[in-house]
Amino acid sequence: MTQRDALPSLGDGLPVVAIDVGGTTMKVSGVGPTGAMTAPRRVPSPPPGPGSADEVVRIATDLVREESERLGVSPAGLGIALPGVVVEDQALGVYSENLEWHDVDFRAAFAQTLDIPVAVAHDVRAAGAAETRLGAAQGASTALVLAIGTGIATSVQVDGRLHVGRGYAGEIGHAVVEPGGEPCVCGNRGCLEATASAGAIRRRYERDAGTQVDGAKEVLALAAAGDPVAVAVRDSAFDALALGLSHAVTLLVPDVVVIAGGLSEAGDALLVPLAERLERLVRYGPVPPLVRAHLGEDAGLVGAALAARDALAPTGAAQTSR
Amino acid sequence: MTQRDALPSLGDGLPVVAIDVGGTTMKVSGVGPTGAMTAPRRVPSPPPGPGSADEVVRIATDLVREESERLGVSPAGLGIALPGVVVEDQALGVYSENLEWHDVDFRAAFAQTLDIPVAVAHDVRAAGAAETRLGAAQGASTALVLAIGTGIATSVQVDGRLHVGRGYAGEIGHAVVEPGGEPCVCGNRGCLEATASAGAIRRRYERDAGTQVDGAKEVLALAAAGDPVAVAVRDSAFDALALGLSHAVTLLVPDVVVIAGGLSEAGDALLVPLAERLERLVRYGPVPPLVRAHLGEDAGLVGAALAARDALAPTGAAQTSR
Repeated sequence: MTQRDALPSLGDGLPVVAIDVGGTTMKVSGVGPTGAMTAPRRVPSPPPGPGSADEVVRIATDLVREESERLGVSPAGLGIALPGVVVEDQALGVYSENLEWHDVDFRAAFAQTLDIPVAVAHDVRAAGAAETRLGAAQGASTALVLAIGTGIATSVQVDGRLHVGRGYAGEIGHAVVEPGGEPCVCGNRGCLEATASAGAIRRRYERDAGTQVDGAKEVLALAAAGDPVAVAVRDSAFDALALGLSHAVTLLVPDVVVIAGGLSEAGDALLVPLAERLERLVRYGPVPPLVRAHLGEDAGLVGAALAARDALAPTGAAQTSR
Repeated sequence: MTQRDALPSLGDGLPVVAIDVGGTTMKVSGVGPTGAMTAPRRVPSPPPGPGSADEVVRIATDLVREESERLGVSPAGLGIALPGVVVEDQALGVYSENLEWHDVDFRAAFAQTLDIPVAVAHDVRAAGAAETRLGAAQGASTALVLAIGTGIATSVQVDGRLHVGRGYAGEIGHAVVEPGGEPCVCGNRGCLEATASAGAIRRRYERDAGTQVDGAKEVLALAAAGDPVAVAVRDSAFDALALGLSHAVTLLVPDVVVIAGGLSEAGDALLVPLAERLERLVRYGPVPPLVRAHLGEDAGLVGAALAARDALAPTGAAQTSR
């Protein structure tokens, strides 16, 4: 179903291993000296709770050994993209809702199990870096890569540099678009994510229609077929996405906005109505083009590979600010 | 009435002249070799319309000559802060609503009248730079300086660099906080500025109460005294300000937000309820302190002086990105 480009080449450099840690799956790929990435493999993520971070480190260590054999060379470094709140330059996993960890020093943890440098990345920022350097936002100076999936967050690249904001930059899924609106997992009401994430679209449809669906994609299909409940859910989700995006666009005036994450697989059924709404909301300054991500669900993995390469040869790489 | 600090010293350096061009007044100050700024003088801005930019250049040229005499030394450069949409590194006045100019090349214009380098600044970004380098946001890496006056706009400093965004960054006065709401000068409806600027607060009170007031300050005083129309106008304005600010804060996670512009003279009557509302809206990441501007209405002038100094000795100065 997923239409996407093949994994891009990173160009000549040291061999590295890239891992993208998700809430349910860990993906791994090896990068050879020519920059070609091996086809991603998937293993289950550990269950949430105490010890999940140690388990992630243990599994990742095994994956590095296996990829080393697949590559036929010893990797010179590991790049690992983590979910939640991450401070890259401290290798700190501040908080993961899905895996339930707090304040994990991944550099110290990997120092016990691996003798190669480990670059810690944040999944959304890693995906943003990948799209900006090798994907849909190539050449953009200021760019947002908005991931719409279970949650909603954006990478924030300003004038060529990724902005970290103490680990919290770009969490616009928790910006309020409707004060007093839908309850959100964060405890607030009316967050963008509570109305417009793929999970929220499914939940709201099931609640309002009284029937179960497979996911947001099915809700969009039902809306396209004229189901009035699906139309209402879809339109309010698109309204909320456009409103949230319009604030980010007005503040930063990005050159391009890349739409990524599971919902981006809807393609023009999402991009066209979202662009129309954005045009109506942003009247004062330039409205950036909305483009679909090129790297699809592998953007985080590619970003992790870039982080590993950057850590080994930082000169000339895109800077990541604090 | 206005409580503010004295003009700060810029430190040793070349003597320059600073001019801040507003919709109704041009302010000028000279900066001597010790960095002390002369007390600001005011002259009327030219009327809007064709020729206003030429008139600004003519008046500014006269002011430079006069300041030269006040200083007792020849200034080595001029810094001039302009309203509207400005692209600093091209010295371009893209658009001014108040003075009605379009695409004015101020470098070319001043080349006809002055034989010293002219640094063009944007009034809100200049004020932001001044507050960040010498005022209320000193030491902050990521900071917003939100000016609430006739209009609403913020300077956007990200990781130590001012973001220009093709001249349009930070125009959050035109971000929609209430789709379909109050009509805005930009042609849209529901913009932050249409509900919450000092001008909007006065206009909305006069419309709803059917009586004239002196300005937003009087509306806030009436609200404090219990006037129900004033309370409603004030509270909706503060709600809108907090909502707009919450989106910027969630996206960028600034270290501090400086509240500037005419409405900031309300002090704690604005800052305290705004901070309370922001705390309620921003639940996921850190909420920055809101502080009152230190440089008051002279921040743009100080920023123009900094721009002039930077242009003459750019090394070590804060960077302004494209």
